[in-house]
Formats: sequence, C-alpha cells, structure tokens
Amino acid sequence: MSAPTTPGPAVADLLGLVAFGELLAFERMAADARLAPDLHRRAALSQMAAAEIGNYRRLADRLTALGVPPEEAMTPYVQPLQAYHDSTEPRDWAEVVTKAYVGDAITDDFLREIADALDEPDRALVLDVLHDSRYAEFAVAEIRVAVADDPRVAGRLSMWARRLVGEALSQAGRVAAERAALTALIARGDRVDVPGLFGRLTAAHTARMAVAGLNN
Amino acid sequence: MSAPTTPGPAVADLLGLVAFGELLAFERMAADARLAPDLHRRAALSQMAAAEIGNYRRLADRLTALGVPPEEAMTPYVQPLQAYHDSTEPRDWAEVVTKAYVGDAITDDFLREIADALDEPDRALVLDVLHDSRYAEFAVAEIRVAVADDPRVAGRLSMWARRLVGEALSQAGRVAAERAALTALIARGDRVDVPGLFGRLTAAHTARMAVAGLNN
Repeated sequence: MSAPTTPGPAVADLLGLVAFGELLAFERMAADARLAPDLHRRAALSQMAAAEIGNYRRLADRLTALGVPPEEAMTPYVQPLQAYHDSTEPRDWAEVVTKAYVGDAITDDFLREIADALDEPDRALVLDVLHDSRYAEFAVAEIRVAVADDPRVAGRLSMWARRLVGEALSQAGRVAAERAALTALIARGDRVDVPGLFGRLTAAHTARMAVAGLNN
Repeated sequence: MSAPTTPGPAVADLLGLVAFGELLAFERMAADARLAPDLHRRAALSQMAAAEIGNYRRLADRLTALGVPPEEAMTPYVQPLQAYHDSTEPRDWAEVVTKAYVGDAITDDFLREIADALDEPDRALVLDVLHDSRYAEFAVAEIRVAVADDPRVAGRLSMWARRLVGEALSQAGRVAAERAALTALIARGDRVDVPGLFGRLTAAHTARMAVAGLNN
C-alpha cells in the first residue's frame, strides 16, 4: 500500500475550520471577560482570548499561501460554530472558565489526532496552534475555587460540561455529514475509525473533568 | 527653576488609566467584530483588538514592577471608561470603525502630550503603546467605502464622531476632577494649560475627520 497523500482541498477545509474556530473562540472569550469577578481575572481571560488571534493569523496566512482566501475556507463553518456558541452562552464566571477549559482541550485533542493525516508544513502548523497549558491550569484553578466556595456548583458545572460536549458533537456531526472531503481526511480513507476517534475524545474529556473535580 | 520630578503615585495613576483603556478597548472591539459585514473585516477588527492586549500586558507588568497591583491602579477608571463605552455602543459597521478611528487617535494624541511629563522608562513605554498607523488606514478606508456607498452616511458618521468626542471629554472631565495627582501630572504643575491641551486634541480630531471625509 502506498503512503497516503494529502488531498489539497481537504487541507484547506481543515485549516478553514480551525481558523474560524480560533476567530470565534477569540470573540466569545473576549465577550465573556465581562463576567469576570475582578479585573485580574478579566485581564487573564482577555489574554487567553488574544492568544487565539495569533493562531488565527498563522492559519489564515497558510491558507493564503495555498491560494485559498481565508474567508472562503471559513465560510462553511460559520453557521455550525456560531450555533455551538449561541447554544452555550455562559451565565457566570464558573461557566465561562469551564467552557474555555472543555472547548480548548477537545479542540487540542482533535488537532493532535488529525495532525497525523497532514503533510508538512501543515502538520507542524496544526500542532503549533495547540493551546498553552497554563491557560488550562488557570481554568482548572478557577473551577476548583468556584466548587470550594459552594460544593453544589460541582453538579451544575458537570451538567454544563456535558451540555458543551453534547452541543459540540452535534455540530461536529453536522459538519462531518456536509464536508465529505474533510471527513475523508480525518478518517484517512478507512484507516481511522471515526466513532473510535470520538470515543477517544470523550474518554480524555472524562479524565479532564475528574482533574477539575467535576463528574462526567 | 529645577527640573520637574515625576511623582510616583501619579505615574501609577496614569499607567492604570492607559492599561484599563487598552483592556476595555480590547473587549469592546472584540465584541464589535460581530457587526463586520464579512469574515475578512471581522478578522481585521479582531486583530486590531488583540493588539491592545499586548499593550495592556506591558503596562500591567510595569505597574507590577513599580509595586502597584494593576487591578488597584485600574479600579478608579472602571466606572468612567465603562460609562463612555456604554453610552457609545455602535449600531453598525461604519459606526464601529469610526469609533475605533476616533478613539485610538485621541488616545494616541493624549499619550504623546503626556509622555513629556514622564521619566524613563515610563516615557518610552507610553510612546511605545501608541497604535499602529495601519489600523487607522484600515478604518479610514472603511469609512470612505461606507460614505461612497451612501453619501448620506457622511452626515450620520460626522454626528456620531461628535458624540464620541463629547462623551469622551465628559468622562475625562470627571476623571480629572476626581484624580488630582493625575491632573497635576498632566498639567506639570502650572506649566501646561489644560484647556489648551483639550483644544489641541480637538483640533487634531477635526483634521482627522476631514481626512476621512467627515465634517466636524
């Protein structure tokens, strides 16, 4: 069997998805900063948000280099990603940090799984835009503080995290159904078992919930 | 007459004002990105916003080095700056870019005037956080497009810009009345005529309006 080659349009599809994900994560986290209980935390979330824009810029530049206008590559994902965020609008600071924690980590796990399907330089680029672990540490510390202040919060945040994953998977399913080339890239022909991939993502998510003191 | 010395608390006061201005400009511009007519412009505004956070970080680090927690230095400005933004919520993309254009430029003019009152390294820091001129060029180009599409927009944006300046001056007056040390720093004792300073800021604003094709 010959080595798999990366189909061009699917790569632009993937980079467009990741780029728009970064752009929207930036906007939503920046907006969520208003829910921070103090200026220190407000600035910390704004800086987490700003980091996404640096990544967005790198992905957009790569799309341009591939001859694909970034807006064109991102357009198919506007509706599903917007729907995800609209249906998961945090109501308080604990929900804000939980959403950032859950969303960043699942995105990173997905990117690590997918990177193998890519040729260089796209492989290195996708691995490079993973989130800095200090942001996850900040979010976990904030979740722990919220739960320590009021133990009943653990139940509410656990439920919130399940809703985040549910909404994300539902939009991911929609994208997968509509973007055959992207799905084929992720599945690398038949070499990757896509339900298995989802299983791994959710198992890692469950482990992370335990780290933050939440239940799956 | 001896050389003026910079009073310590007043410098922290000034850096706190500029830092919170950057933090809030970041949040508001990030939120305003949703009004962009396409993904290209949406990303452009998000990148303008993200630039503010890099500056915020530098100012916060300097405050920390001076032994002043950034949150403490920023607290006095939360109410007036929030009031400015709440009273100038843009309704469409043309208002978004006009607000960014007017606000960035007046901030920069003010910082250039004030820098002279500071010792190093604060003088260099304040001059360093001035906005990149390519953002002003982007905003001017967008205003011209909006006016070219519909000449009546020029009148509406001119009125909008006057309101932005009016609201900014009204909040600046409040801050000046409440923060005597900061006002003394700006006035450098009696060496700077503060009404004259406001006169220079508004004259420069009028000239910029003309560049963008708007009337004062």
